[in-house]
Amino acid sequence: MSRTVKIEKKILEKNDTIAARLRNNFAKRKLAVINIMSSPGAGKTTLLAETIKKLSGRISIGIIVGDIATDHDAKILEDAGAFWAIQINTGGRCHLEAGMIEAVMELAPEKLNLLIIENIGNLVCPAGYDLGENVTVMLGALTEGIDKPKKYPGMYRACSRLVINKTDLENALDIKADDFEKEALMVNPKLEIFKTSAKTGNGMNEWCGWIASLVNAEH
Amino acid sequence: MSRTVKIEKKILEKNDTIAARLRNNFAKRKLAVINIMSSPGAGKTTLLAETIKKLSGRISIGIIVGDIATDHDAKILEDAGAFWAIQINTGGRCHLEAGMIEAVMELAPEKLNLLIIENIGNLVCPAGYDLGENVTVMLGALTEGIDKPKKYPGMYRACSRLVINKTDLENALDIKADDFEKEALMVNPKLEIFKTSAKTGNGMNEWCGWIASLVNAEH
Repeated sequence: MSRTVKIEKKILEKNDTIAARLRNNFAKRKLAVINIMSSPGAGKTTLLAETIKKLSGRISIGIIVGDIATDHDAKILEDAGAFWAIQINTGGRCHLEAGMIEAVMELAPEKLNLLIIENIGNLVCPAGYDLGENVTVMLGALTEGIDKPKKYPGMYRACSRLVINKTDLENALDIKADDFEKEALMVNPKLEIFKTSAKTGNGMNEWCGWIASLVNAEH
Repeated sequence: MSRTVKIEKKILEKNDTIAARLRNNFAKRKLAVINIMSSPGAGKTTLLAETIKKLSGRISIGIIVGDIATDHDAKILEDAGAFWAIQINTGGRCHLEAGMIEAVMELAPEKLNLLIIENIGNLVCPAGYDLGENVTVMLGALTEGIDKPKKYPGMYRACSRLVINKTDLENALDIKADDFEKEALMVNPKLEIFKTSAKTGNGMNEWCGWIASLVNAEH
């Protein structure tokens, strides 16, 4: 077991070196960068498509989408109005690594204000890999049940913002977003929390307002 | 990248050796073994609790529950009537490995007919690790959206059975279980599919009937 841990440590150290270089390059370009993570099916792509529709008139948004297979999410986000959208198909790997981001950033157009990295749907491994982002966001869906923050504390602690999505299903599920929020704050009391329904638009103004503020902030 | 792949190959080979030994031991004990995998929040624990309630009068069921953190699922399943329930807390690792199962099997009581391994909630990594089981089951929830089979083909191909859960939410989600089924069969045409709602009980007789038949079958 100890051998495995050492190997992982080496990979993580290499990742951190590349992430630091990326962070430096993002700052030079005055590019705000978000790394958004969630379990499969929490609604990342739908939330991002709605976000892009609201903001693409004002902000030039780039998207890097990670997936094990398929490339249709990048197409959806380009159709929604992303200035640049690229898919990283990891061919089975369960998380994005800084080296993958560095490789595709060579293709990124100059004219970007905001880069959103949509990580692989996985509540474990992506939490360990710094991608050079400014802000790390966790997207939880009400449909997952309120026990998830305590079951995946590494992810909930790795993020500074939490979006609780699919709030339109509160009644059908008999789960309250407020209860999800309480559980999340027990695991990470510093979380800033948004509650959204990408389907009905509920809470999207607050979320998009915050995203826009990142672009205006200093990095 | 190639170095990483080699390391992973070595870990997987070691896992396969232990899994083969486990499978041999399970056969000697005439123990039917199911490895059940899903994304976080698909409803594994609720489905298993309802399954155990229906079957524990007839079958002596053991449960091994994997989680990154917390141990409350094992307690829930013991309360539901499992003869033996043990939690493996992986301390951050994103999947169960055969060596972990072998270690806890030393604690298993003789009088078991069925062992259910509830894997970590993750649609990627657990698919690569044989745990010596007879049957590998994927639990998908309607709430995840019907694009998941194509996005996580490794998992859908690693399993021979699929349970489509949370069918009670068909109307609230405007997603049909039949459409999820079609997408899954495109990725793995050999899948045998159950459709359940652990909440309303819909489809639970078919699912539990199949589980009971495993115990009576030869391994």
